[in-house]
Amino acid sequence: MSNPTAAILVIGDEILSGRTREANAYHLASELTRVGIDLAEVRVVPDDHDVIVEALGALRERYTHVFTSGGIGPTHDDITADAVAAAFGVGIDVRADARALLEEALARRGATPTADQLRMARIPDGASLIVNGVSGAPGFTIGNVHVLAGVPSIFVAMLEALLPTLAAGVPVRSREVRFEVGEGRVATGLRQLVEEMPEVGFGSYPFSEGQLRGTNIVVRGTDEARLEDAVLRLEELRASLR
Amino acid sequence: MSNPTAAILVIGDEILSGRTREANAYHLASELTRVGIDLAEVRVVPDDHDVIVEALGALRERYTHVFTSGGIGPTHDDITADAVAAAFGVGIDVRADARALLEEALARRGATPTADQLRMARIPDGASLIVNGVSGAPGFTIGNVHVLAGVPSIFVAMLEALLPTLAAGVPVRSREVRFEVGEGRVATGLRQLVEEMPEVGFGSYPFSEGQLRGTNIVVRGTDEARLEDAVLRLEELRASLR
Repeated sequence: MSNPTAAILVIGDEILSGRTREANAYHLASELTRVGIDLAEVRVVPDDHDVIVEALGALRERYTHVFTSGGIGPTHDDITADAVAAAFGVGIDVRADARALLEEALARRGATPTADQLRMARIPDGASLIVNGVSGAPGFTIGNVHVLAGVPSIFVAMLEALLPTLAAGVPVRSREVRFEVGEGRVATGLRQLVEEMPEVGFGSYPFSEGQLRGTNIVVRGTDEARLEDAVLRLEELRASLR
Repeated sequence: MSNPTAAILVIGDEILSGRTREANAYHLASELTRVGIDLAEVRVVPDDHDVIVEALGALRERYTHVFTSGGIGPTHDDITADAVAAAFGVGIDVRADARALLEEALARRGATPTADQLRMARIPDGASLIVNGVSGAPGFTIGNVHVLAGVPSIFVAMLEALLPTLAAGVPVRSREVRFEVGEGRVATGLRQLVEEMPEVGFGSYPFSEGQLRGTNIVVRGTDEARLEDAVLRLEELRASLR
């Protein structure tokens, strides 16, 4: 049986303009690898209602899970919740449980929500909330779509609450062997190993450190013993290239 | 007239597994903003021929330019050039000019290309080469698709060679105003400004520094004078929130 699959839809003009370096997809990638869910696509789109609706439609058909990041704050450019409701063809409104979470968090700072802050309690019909200990505003899950915040510390907290509730797969493990020769010199021996060990995934990643040109070979798979074999074979290959 | 648009297709299992943090889309985003080409989508997909072909088909229909990153080295997992040829329905083979570049670079290290290294001189029919001063292996342009290396230093060098050859748009400029209050307190006044100044793009980005919760408001547009107006209005808003 193969693992569940996932995509993340990152929503934010600030990523596409180069203002902000994306961090949430990178965090999600390693968390999903850890629990055996295969991240199969990352997509970054602007704060544009129609584009978000269309991307959600495509991704949720194709993958077991779709995570979104960004666009659920109180300002005019926070349009993700409405786009998700539109993608599912359901209504959206302020919901009592979400409002209570928000009011509770604001009360700790002696404040009550403004009309704009209340927007963060608007939840599509039929969704379940994803709480977080950092801010009062919840994320939510509807169908196979999990809507998380864009602020990295809140994204991390929401994911931590959400992940244990998802069916896990078989964790994919990886090992890495460092070659201090360029990728061109590794390629031929590596190609032979790839053919001999089809159940192991091999990746080849050239690097340079000052004058040194090297190559990291990563082996990935679910069976520790086969990975160990692959590492031994790579070490033999490395010795033969000296 | 609106600016040219672009997408980048990042090809690489290492990004999706969380092993490597993506860097090239981030670099491309700020370079394109500088020359007035609007980056409208980032997509990361695995080293899978059919997935790459399908994504290229979708993206090149939709955007003025499609950049790709990764998968043009000498190893078994370097499948981008073949996928691009398949997406365009053209042949692919080792080409004399690309081979000469490769041989020249290897000769400087006293080597000649192996069969696997020669794969890096396979160029789809009808493409033009993108040279770089870091490695011998060229990228290439076919139609509106620009195929660049995944190694960041080589990606940067290829982009530097390529960008001046593309028709530029009107550079989008941005200014930023820092509010030392949370996004919820800025939202209402900001919404009013957004309605009054439709020709300026406003983005709202909450941050926290220790105990401080703040919000950066970014204004973007092509007209410096209007941006300056927007900054003054934001500074007034900030003063009113004290």
